[in-house]
Amino acid sequence: MAPQYAPSLRSRLPPLLLFLQIGFIVIYAVYVEIESNIKADGTTFSSFYPEFQDVNVMVILGFGFLCTFLVRYSYSASGFNLLVAVMATQWAIILNGIESWYYRGKIRVDLGSLVVAEMCAASALISIGAVQGKTNPVHLVLIALLEVSGFVLNEWLLQTLLKVPAVNSIMLLHIFGSFFGLTLTWILFRKGSLQPFEKEKFDRQTGLFSMLGSVFLWMFWPSFNSVLVDNHSPGRKLGAVCSTYLALAVSAVTAAAVSALSSPKGKVNPIHMQSCILAGGVAVGVSMSAVHQPWEAMTIGFTAAVVSTIGLKYLKTHMQLALECHDTCAVLSTHGLPGLLGWLAHLLLQIKAGDDHTTAIRFAVFHICTLLITISLSLSMGIITGLLLKWNFWRPPQDKKCFDDQAFWEFPHLAVKK
Amino acid sequence: MAPQYAPSLRSRLPPLLLFLQIGFIVIYAVYVEIESNIKADGTTFSSFYPEFQDVNVMVILGFGFLCTFLVRYSYSASGFNLLVAVMATQWAIILNGIESWYYRGKIRVDLGSLVVAEMCAASALISIGAVQGKTNPVHLVLIALLEVSGFVLNEWLLQTLLKVPAVNSIMLLHIFGSFFGLTLTWILFRKGSLQPFEKEKFDRQTGLFSMLGSVFLWMFWPSFNSVLVDNHSPGRKLGAVCSTYLALAVSAVTAAAVSALSSPKGKVNPIHMQSCILAGGVAVGVSMSAVHQPWEAMTIGFTAAVVSTIGLKYLKTHMQLALECHDTCAVLSTHGLPGLLGWLAHLLLQIKAGDDHTTAIRFAVFHICTLLITISLSLSMGIITGLLLKWNFWRPPQDKKCFDDQAFWEFPHLAVKK
Amino acid sequence: MAPQYAPSLRSRLPPLLLFLQIGFIVIYAVYVEIESNIKADGTTFSSFYPEFQDVNVMVILGFGFLCTFLVRYSYSASGFNLLVAVMATQWAIILNGIESWYYRGKIRVDLGSLVVAEMCAASALISIGAVQGKTNPVHLVLIALLEVSGFVLNEWLLQTLLKVPAVNSIMLLHIFGSFFGLTLTWILFRKGSLQPFEKEKFDRQTGLFSMLGSVFLWMFWPSFNSVLVDNHSPGRKLGAVCSTYLALAVSAVTAAAVSALSSPKGKVNPIHMQSCILAGGVAVGVSMSAVHQPWEAMTIGFTAAVVSTIGLKYLKTHMQLALECHDTCAVLSTHGLPGLLGWLAHLLLQIKAGDDHTTAIRFAVFHICTLLITISLSLSMGIITGLLLKWNFWRPPQDKKCFDDQAFWEFPHLAVKK
Repeated sequence: MAPQYAPSLRSRLPPLLLFLQIGFIVIYAVYVEIESNIKADGTTFSSFYPEFQDVNVMVILGFGFLCTFLVRYSYSASGFNLLVAVMATQWAIILNGIESWYYRGKIRVDLGSLVVAEMCAASALISIGAVQGKTNPVHLVLIALLEVSGFVLNEWLLQTLLKVPAVNSIMLLHIFGSFFGLTLTWILFRKGSLQPFEKEKFDRQTGLFSMLGSVFLWMFWPSFNSVLVDNHSPGRKLGAVCSTYLALAVSAVTAAAVSALSSPKGKVNPIHMQSCILAGGVAVGVSMSAVHQPWEAMTIGFTAAVVSTIGLKYLKTHMQLALECHDTCAVLSTHGLPGLLGWLAHLLLQIKAGDDHTTAIRFAVFHICTLLITISLSLSMGIITGLLLKWNFWRPPQDKKCFDDQAFWEFPHLAVKK
Repeated sequence: MAPQYAPSLRSRLPPLLLFLQIGFIVIYAVYVEIESNIKADGTTFSSFYPEFQDVNVMVILGFGFLCTFLVRYSYSASGFNLLVAVMATQWAIILNGIESWYYRGKIRVDLGSLVVAEMCAASALISIGAVQGKTNPVHLVLIALLEVSGFVLNEWLLQTLLKVPAVNSIMLLHIFGSFFGLTLTWILFRKGSLQPFEKEKFDRQTGLFSMLGSVFLWMFWPSFNSVLVDNHSPGRKLGAVCSTYLALAVSAVTAAAVSALSSPKGKVNPIHMQSCILAGGVAVGVSMSAVHQPWEAMTIGFTAAVVSTIGLKYLKTHMQLALECHDTCAVLSTHGLPGLLGWLAHLLLQIKAGDDHTTAIRFAVFHICTLLITISLSLSMGIITGLLLKWNFWRPPQDKKCFDDQAFWEFPHLAVKK
Repeated sequence: MAPQYAPSLRSRLPPLLLFLQIGFIVIYAVYVEIESNIKADGTTFSSFYPEFQDVNVMVILGFGFLCTFLVRYSYSASGFNLLVAVMATQWAIILNGIESWYYRGKIRVDLGSLVVAEMCAASALISIGAVQGKTNPVHLVLIALLEVSGFVLNEWLLQTLLKVPAVNSIMLLHIFGSFFGLTLTWILFRKGSLQPFEKEKFDRQTGLFSMLGSVFLWMFWPSFNSVLVDNHSPGRKLGAVCSTYLALAVSAVTAAAVSALSSPKGKVNPIHMQSCILAGGVAVGVSMSAVHQPWEAMTIGFTAAVVSTIGLKYLKTHMQLALECHDTCAVLSTHGLPGLLGWLAHLLLQIKAGDDHTTAIRFAVFHICTLLITISLSLSMGIITGLLLKWNFWRPPQDKKCFDDQAFWEFPHLAVKK
């Protein structure tokens, strides 16, 4: 008979975390230093810091609380999110600095590298959304490290082979993260775990925390899309902020409308209202450099919200039944489809803006290659990670203990007094 | 017998939202463009953006979560707040740009116009506080559009006829919003809905979310009052921030004291602690341009908190019984009375600062006209809106379904699995 | 027989609050003015304001919601936190301005003085963490005023006698606050109140609010440590931000690892995850001016998290049994021990960086004196405050009513309708 309690992670999680953390400290001691060469007027620091904090709030609080809607999984969603985010950020700083290390012997940390590292962490957090509840924290940390490695490799390939600008390649994090996560959850699918999905319920109490996380993501998404735009072109930065804001506004309205339209009683689904209002931000982020008019951003936001809401409504169940691919937080509909839509919008807008056919066709080929590299790399990294995680050595939670905080958290109900 | 379920909004809400949203996109496509003429140093953008985000957080998160204290209405309070805020903001951008469109053929969007539009949305959100729980989202969207139209008209009248500075006229949003909302709820009052008010209960669990919204409003109120002060006079901006901060601090202490004093057992009422701590921010906002000394701001904060707490304690019930005017979120005490007090403080301070009688009397006449125009316009717009909303075509929630999320939200308790 | 209801505070709390508040307004009217002499370019204001808001969010929201985990005490934790914070801030502005008043006859308020005053308030909030749940709001206000007075006196002594830089002396707030609080709770310990500690339970629902407060503190701690670093040396400011960020990241990982390691079933304790992830921020804050390399900050963060988690696990119970010192929010482990560790790290790093023995020994003597003065002053102020509060005149809550919102908050369950 299966053991009644979840397998103890005492011999797995602490050693892994301590080993990695001490390893990071050693690497940082040898190779990393804090940037000291800053202009004396300080405007760069003070103008960048608020945007850095907005992204920080999105990654730590927004993504963390977005997934708290599961009735018994809110501590894991918010707590492990923090754990995974900081591991991934530390790792991403190292990986992103390899080139600088190669040429100068040192990796320099400043606000810019922290922001880029947090965005790599965001791509890992998106992947984790797909396997949320069916994995333990050991899995999550491994996923994060491998996903970030794959994503940085993808960025490097795109920037080296295709000369994709850094701002554009990093925005593919939505596409990379979601397809990585989907492959992973498809490989890790276990027949026996169909039953525990009963615990995968929306809870009215913790659902409000999820609303809170969603609102934070919604509010600060303009910072997420504009933070990497060059500070010396404030016009483009303002354009990024306004486009994202308008796209998000349209998304919120459209998500509510489509949600009510697709419900027989005309009611709005709170999960749609939490996930799909963000679709516009994702899509405009991916197509940012080609969006110049407000209506373009708004149309992209409109289409993204329609696709995302319909996807969430119909795709999730079908994917589970047909493909045995169970996507807990619906990352396909929230990040994958709007990301692809943004890619398509970028292509169309660029072709429209082009003067002649040759440039248009060139750009199309180049743009399609970008997508193909990203998707194939995310799929292959997902397969590798999935196969590694199937190993029982990592003590996956039993089927019964999925979606349950009790497996990982010690609630000191009676233990406090003495 | 009345139907047991709330009337479906499927044939009302989605068409209205989609029609309006597509209409907005078309208008934006033809008339709106993003401001591109920005100084190259970028300081304007980077110094303005954090304040814009603070106001954004207040409007989307603060107002939204402030009203979550109702035991069964927290999804509607936070979710429809977002919906209404983004509709109102998009509409306000168009209305505020009419003048620019008239002269230049185009409406330009930048951070400044977004902030002004969000403040117009805030005035609509205040109105909605009065009818919260007794209306459906279709009503809310219509209220928001009409309220914003009235408020922008009022601003235009004040600025054109009386040459009121833009910063002062927009701060009247508290007075305009609350009197509009009160007229509305007075017209929409239904005898039969007295009974369901039993559902209008404070809930200890969701009350903490309300505390959270209130704390966010409290923290960022200095940004709300200072954001429109000209960036080129940092001294006045600092003055606005410090005055507002001190007034809010005094308000918090005074609200707790008066609340405990007015309770037989000397206990503090959590609703007082959530609403009345903001009174100082409202009052100082309205009288901002005349406040120069810290003690003036603190005295205004003190008086506003006393008036607001006593109003919340005694006025709400009496207004319902005597005037059949049911004010769910007590906008009269939270925004209306402190707003009027701020108006009075502005008058007194300005008279005190004046040199001779003639100027004082001139200012008094001018200041009283400002208030009269604002109040008569808000009352008449409230009456028009109220009469329009009485039409049963909009499918108001039955008396039994007031203050209930269940009428508008689909909770997928059992629906997730398959 | 003891009365069944908590003693009414109606004759204590409102008079105290109103007396103090009106007194503050009078003092401000005579002596305080808002700084008006600001450079015209406004960069100082706009570059400082976002950091000021971050600290504001930490003090009002972070500290307030961190203590909401107690099952029945969440309104008191968040509401009285606001009350105490604003009283302490107003008082600290006056105390910090005494020197300026002495020389210039006026106390000037600007963003800088607000931030310093909020940090003094933070030291009072730390103290209050130790007595949370066993005191009434009258106690809390008195504690805050006396603690802030002691802390400002300590700062003045250190800066006058030992020429400690202001940035360093204010960071000792963690040490001062926690030892003050511990002395206080040791003096106020009542045998009879051992029983009600049963109410001192962690609650899964409100625990998420605590997680939220903790996450806000975690995210904005870099601002807390860097806000007072001179704006004209952006390099040092960036260093403070990056060091704090890295230390916090390492703390989060280490706290999770140690928590799982010290649990027989390998589970993570949510209270550890909420308190100990902040240890790195505390320790790096205290040692800030000597930290120059990322690995130094990371090692400090690692050690601080280990000490903090182990302290929280084992020290709290032993202190209660052996010393009759009951520390509700474990301020010893969260602020005291990491603070001492930061002090030690500062000493070691400074000695390592020094060239010769004489300088090193001189610095050591000076540094030890700093600590001795801080601790002896905090202990003596704690004893004085404790003896004052033992007076029954302040109507302490009965043993049965400890850790219970019901004693201080009026929940209008049935009172709303009429």
